[in-house]
Amino acid sequence: MAIVGVLGAGMMGSALCVPLADRGHEVRVVGTHLEGPLVERLRAGEPHPGLHVRLPESVSVFPESELDPMLADVDLLVLGVSSAGIDWASERIAAHLRADRPVLMITKGLHWDGVALRALPDVLSARFPRGIEVAAIAGPCIAGELARRSPTCVLIAGHERPTCERLADMLRTPYYEPGTTDDVIGSCACSALKNGYAMAYGFAGGLHERSGGEPGTVAMHNLESALFSQSVLEMQRIAVALGGRAETVAGLAGIGDLDVTNNGNRTGRFGHLLGLGLSVDEAVKRMHGATLECIEIVRVMREAKHALGRVGSLPLMDHMAEVVLDGAPVAPPIARFFE
Amino acid sequence: MAIVGVLGAGMMGSALCVPLADRGHEVRVVGTHLEGPLVERLRAGEPHPGLHVRLPESVSVFPESELDPMLADVDLLVLGVSSAGIDWASERIAAHLRADRPVLMITKGLHWDGVALRALPDVLSARFPRGIEVAAIAGPCIAGELARRSPTCVLIAGHERPTCERLADMLRTPYYEPGTTDDVIGSCACSALKNGYAMAYGFAGGLHERSGGEPGTVAMHNLESALFSQSVLEMQRIAVALGGRAETVAGLAGIGDLDVTNNGNRTGRFGHLLGLGLSVDEAVKRMHGATLECIEIVRVMREAKHALGRVGSLPLMDHMAEVVLDGAPVAPPIARFFE
Repeated sequence: MAIVGVLGAGMMGSALCVPLADRGHEVRVVGTHLEGPLVERLRAGEPHPGLHVRLPESVSVFPESELDPMLADVDLLVLGVSSAGIDWASERIAAHLRADRPVLMITKGLHWDGVALRALPDVLSARFPRGIEVAAIAGPCIAGELARRSPTCVLIAGHERPTCERLADMLRTPYYEPGTTDDVIGSCACSALKNGYAMAYGFAGGLHERSGGEPGTVAMHNLESALFSQSVLEMQRIAVALGGRAETVAGLAGIGDLDVTNNGNRTGRFGHLLGLGLSVDEAVKRMHGATLECIEIVRVMREAKHALGRVGSLPLMDHMAEVVLDGAPVAPPIARFFE
Repeated sequence: MAIVGVLGAGMMGSALCVPLADRGHEVRVVGTHLEGPLVERLRAGEPHPGLHVRLPESVSVFPESELDPMLADVDLLVLGVSSAGIDWASERIAAHLRADRPVLMITKGLHWDGVALRALPDVLSARFPRGIEVAAIAGPCIAGELARRSPTCVLIAGHERPTCERLADMLRTPYYEPGTTDDVIGSCACSALKNGYAMAYGFAGGLHERSGGEPGTVAMHNLESALFSQSVLEMQRIAVALGGRAETVAGLAGIGDLDVTNNGNRTGRFGHLLGLGLSVDEAVKRMHGATLECIEIVRVMREAKHALGRVGSLPLMDHMAEVVLDGAPVAPPIARFFE
C-alpha cells in the first residue's frame, strides 16, 4: 500500500480520501492556508461540513503548517484545491515534486491565457521540472455521493497510459471504478464546457414554468433533450478543434459529466432562473453568491473563439453568450441546430 | 401546400398533425379499425383522450371505412400506428402506394425475424413494390409536448437524402425542427435500444431508495450518469455492428432520445421498481398493464446477439438480461464498464 498526500480538505479532496482509505493506503490530508478552521473540525472527528459525513478513521488531517513534513515521503500527490488555488498549490508543492511521484489533479478544466486554451494538467506540467507526470480525474462525480460510497465511475486522464493505469489501480474499490484515457485536452474541455451547457439544459425548465406549466411528464423535455444532444455536438466540435477526440465527449468525461451536472446542480438552477425571464443580475442575486462557472466559461469561449480555428457552428454557445454577456432573452435557436 | 394522410389516430399520429396543420397542409387522419370510438370523439371536437388537447380545426378525422377515398390523392402517407399494427397498416395502404408518394413512419425500431435484426422502414420497404420510399422519424419527442407546440427537434431518417429534406421542409415550424440522416439502421437501433437502457438508468434511483436514501442532490446520480454513458457506448457498439454509425448514437437519435426517455417515462419507473428489489413479476404488476418495450428489446438482444457478429463487450445489456429474463438482482457491473 502507498502513502498518499492530499492537498486541500474541500469536498472533492476529502471525498477522494474515502476510496483511498478503503483501498488501504495511508492518507494524509493537508488543509490549505484558508482551511484552518475546517482542519480543526476534521481533526476533532466532526463530520465534514460540506459532505456531512465523517472521514474514515484511518485518514489523518493536518494544518498547512505541517505540509512539508507530511508530503516529504508520499508516493502520490493529490491536488484537491479549487482552480483559484492552483497557482498557490503548485508553488507550495514544488519542493516535493519527484519523477516517481505523480501529481493527480481533482481540479480540471481549461486555462485561457489570452492566446491559447490549454488543459490545466498541461499548464501545471509546463511549470514543473521535466519528468513530473500530471494526471486529472474526469467524469461524473458528485463529492457527496462518493463520500457515501455510492457507485461512481471516473476517468484518469494523463499522457502516460501506464501511470494512469497505476493510479486507477491505486484508487479502485468496489464502488469507485476508474478507467483511463490519454485524451487530456478532450477530457479537460468536457470538464470546463459542461458547466456552460448545463446552464442551457436548465433554460428549458425555466421556459416551461414561465409559460405556466408545472413539472411533470409533459414539460419541455423534448427541448431539454435537444439541448443535451446539441451540447454534445458542440462540445465535440470544440474538443476536436483543441486537438481532443470526439469519442471522449461521447463518453464518461462528456455526456456522463454533463448528465450529472444537469441533475439539480446550481448551474442548472441558474439556467432555470434565466429561462424564467430573470435578468442575469437578478438570477445571480437569487443564487446567493454561489460560484457560477457557467458565466466564466461562456466569457472565455467568446474571447477564445478565434483561437479555436475552424471549429464549425456553435449556435447554442453563441446563444448562451448573448444571454449571459449581452442580456438577450432565453430563446434556444433550434432552427440553427442542424447547420 | 400538400395533402397529408395520417393512418392512426393515436397519440403520436395525432400530435404530428399539429405542425402539419400549422404548416398549412390539408391533414386527414384516418383511424384504424380499433379506433372507432376515438374517431367519434375527435370528430365531435373533444380533446384527444391521450394528449388532453384538441386537434387543430383544420385537421379532418375519418373512420377506417373511409380510408380508401381519403388516402387516394394524398402527397404523403404517414403511418401513425404502433409496431403491433404495422402489418395490418402496410396491407391496408398497399393500394395507395406510388413512387412519388413517400411513406413516413412514426413507429420505428428494429425487427428481429430469428435470423437478422433489420430497421423497420427497411422491412416495410422490402414488402412494397420497388421505388416506394420509406422514411422514419427519430429523436426525442414526447407526443404530449409536440401537441402543445413545445420546442422539439427530430431527425427524418431515410436512404434518399433529397426525400428526407423535402419531408423536413414539409414538417418544419418554429417549434418543430426536423434534421435529416441517411443512417436508417443506426437511428432505428437507437429507437429500439433506448427503451432497454432507460430501464437501466432507472435502476439507480431504485437502488438509492432501497438503501434508505431520499431524492435529492446526493442520490445515485454518479451511477445514473455512468449508466447513461455506458448505455451510449453499448448502443454505439450495437449500431455499428448492424451497419450504422457511432455518431448517430452520439446525436439526437441516440443520446437525445435516451435522455427524454430517462425523464419520468414508464420504462424508468419499471427500472426503479426493479432497483428497489421487486421481482420482475411484481414490478410488471405495479405497472398496471403498461406496455414494457424494455423487456422485449432485452429478450430480442439476447436472442439476436450471435447475429451481431463482433459487437464487443455489452456488460450492461448482459446485466439487464440477467435481471429481467433470469430474475437476478439489480447490481450494475461497473467493474466491467471499461473492458
